[in-house]
Amino acid sequence: VSRPTAADSPVDARARPTLSDPDTPFAVVDRTRLERNIARLSRRLGALGIPLRPHVKTAKSVEVARLLFDGNAGPITVSTLAEAEAFSDVGFSDITYAVGIDPHKLPRVAALHRGGVRLTVLLDSLEQARAVVAAGQEDGLTIPALVEVDCDGHRGGVQATGAELVEIGRTLADVGSLDGVLLHAGESYFARSEEDLATAAEKERATAVAAADSLRAAGLEVPTVSVGSTPTAHAARDLTGVTEVRAGNYVFFDLVMAGLGVCSIGDIALSVVVTVIGHRPDLGWVITDGGWMAMSRDRGTAVQAVDQGYGLVTDLSGRLLPDLVMTGASQEHGTLSVRPGADTPLPALPIGTRLRILPNHACATAAQHQDYQVIGSDEAGTGQAPLVEAVWPRVGGW
Amino acid sequence: VSRPTAADSPVDARARPTLSDPDTPFAVVDRTRLERNIARLSRRLGALGIPLRPHVKTAKSVEVARLLFDGNAGPITVSTLAEAEAFSDVGFSDITYAVGIDPHKLPRVAALHRGGVRLTVLLDSLEQARAVVAAGQEDGLTIPALVEVDCDGHRGGVQATGAELVEIGRTLADVGSLDGVLLHAGESYFARSEEDLATAAEKERATAVAAADSLRAAGLEVPTVSVGSTPTAHAARDLTGVTEVRAGNYVFFDLVMAGLGVCSIGDIALSVVVTVIGHRPDLGWVITDGGWMAMSRDRGTAVQAVDQGYGLVTDLSGRLLPDLVMTGASQEHGTLSVRPGADTPLPALPIGTRLRILPNHACATAAQHQDYQVIGSDEAGTGQAPLVEAVWPRVGGW
Repeated sequence: VSRPTAADSPVDARARPTLSDPDTPFAVVDRTRLERNIARLSRRLGALGIPLRPHVKTAKSVEVARLLFDGNAGPITVSTLAEAEAFSDVGFSDITYAVGIDPHKLPRVAALHRGGVRLTVLLDSLEQARAVVAAGQEDGLTIPALVEVDCDGHRGGVQATGAELVEIGRTLADVGSLDGVLLHAGESYFARSEEDLATAAEKERATAVAAADSLRAAGLEVPTVSVGSTPTAHAARDLTGVTEVRAGNYVFFDLVMAGLGVCSIGDIALSVVVTVIGHRPDLGWVITDGGWMAMSRDRGTAVQAVDQGYGLVTDLSGRLLPDLVMTGASQEHGTLSVRPGADTPLPALPIGTRLRILPNHACATAAQHQDYQVIGSDEAGTGQAPLVEAVWPRVGGW
Repeated sequence: VSRPTAADSPVDARARPTLSDPDTPFAVVDRTRLERNIARLSRRLGALGIPLRPHVKTAKSVEVARLLFDGNAGPITVSTLAEAEAFSDVGFSDITYAVGIDPHKLPRVAALHRGGVRLTVLLDSLEQARAVVAAGQEDGLTIPALVEVDCDGHRGGVQATGAELVEIGRTLADVGSLDGVLLHAGESYFARSEEDLATAAEKERATAVAAADSLRAAGLEVPTVSVGSTPTAHAARDLTGVTEVRAGNYVFFDLVMAGLGVCSIGDIALSVVVTVIGHRPDLGWVITDGGWMAMSRDRGTAVQAVDQGYGLVTDLSGRLLPDLVMTGASQEHGTLSVRPGADTPLPALPIGTRLRILPNHACATAAQHQDYQVIGSDEAGTGQAPLVEAVWPRVGGW
């Protein structure tokens, strides 16, 4: 991307890049909204008295992770060992890797431990528990592990009551590796009401506590009872028995979360800047240079009450363009059109006009980009292109 | 990813990495299939007497692009200026940028020209034509441009007969910038039969020739008549009047192309290696460490006669596991289950088993990865893990 530098711009305020400067498409983070989202969940969990272990898989940004802890390095959750390695490089030393451990990856887990990181792994089988025990013994390490417990038939996990959980727990506890239980209420993403969300949160809590109780009844110590998802973290009314909450998406939020009622559209901190490159008045289309490569193929709102296509459209300063939706995507082309049924006219958007697209799913859209252009404040209503304060890189790969 | 090196492996055949070595998930290219796919289309277009200008947006790999031209640098098509810049760095100097030009990007186009690259741009409006003319005049360059013409209401493009095409063409021709016309039969991806594909190809050809004739009737020279898409390039029976064909996906192919009948499943040269990390026998699921981050969210086969979920499953040597489909995906988890309606039992796939997933859409899946592990031959039937011959990087960003 081309950006103005001191060499090619006059030395005045215009030398500071704005969202009009980098070539499109590119990802933007609104720092004001990001900080508001972070403060909101911190306040909420503070009131409930439960520590947060944020999931950094959404932003995959060291700068965002530091904002979570007032500039310091707190406990985090990661989705890949590449994240664990990148975040440990900048001082994060208490990390939970919340994907079931593949035994082939244990040498990298052990290397992180030798480097001073307390990396906790996740598992839901006796085979994995034995592999973790063996890897620890080989290296003279105690690798802490959480047992994944299912609460809603969404993905992996053993049942909260039953012989399997206890057998796995005992195998780990025998070498001091049992850290506790971890649950993720993944089905909460498909909830239909605030009451549904609160019910999902309570089910997650109650199942976690039941699982911990199963282990304790077998004489095992369970220091950690970890639950979480962005919807349930915002909906939980009581977290008795829980020791930590995980949530990730909430730093950016997105149209799926807005559709669930967890946030408003005005809270969404991630967008993608695109440029108008064509018009098809005969078809009611405006064509942009932002396709699925820039937005991802994620269409999470397709199963919600209001389908937002590939995203909603704002001007460069963040003002929503009424009823304009990104309705189509090819690799490097986006199609914008008026929401079916609306009688709003297609706005006049000349070639070269820059727009911002709000994503269905922030995790998936952010993953299509190598960095974020960071703006300092929401300038909605001004019509001005916000200044770019910084460029934050993302961690990629596995 | 960890890979064995001379330092940590005995100096014997085992020191050569196989698909059992890198940490999962990772993308694999089968070079034997890749070369076969490349040879097939070259042979086909050779017989029709039309040169190919391959689209490098699928693989975004210099090594793949070189295989297209027997190790040399031939004419290519790109979807981003980042590709144009990366490919020009290694000697490709005849490049068509096949996304409608954003005037803001013209300084990079001009810089490529100054560096000796003949970069041809695409446009379908008078505003864009005027911007290209102005940029050329400012820099003392003649920037060649193709006018995009619509043939199937799929995306952008002016009509093949009409004043708009001629007006744009004349604006370009006045400064020597008119190169010709370009069409893309995007709707061919939704064809239902071989006959439909042949019809789409003929419509693309006939519309292209009609557009060129419109310009010629106005006294303008039209050196280039460019058509193409992977389905129509394989289905066209006659290309009279066409001067070049573009196609990109065919180097890898995918389940969408197999569903269209353009290739067989055994031609698919791209896959993603994943590891089994869990089981839910109660739900009929095998859980892997390859989610949408590794496969993309693309579900192109969902609208075809046979929905292949997020992909079909093979063993590490490439043998299909009958009726096993990747039916679910979260960020770093994949769910495999038996195809609905099939009475095949769920195979025994212990924790740690490595599998390969064939993608819906190679362009989208490849885009989730930074490089490819390249295997030399399809070892289907051997049950052995293929040797990794090379690692080829991808070009990223815009």
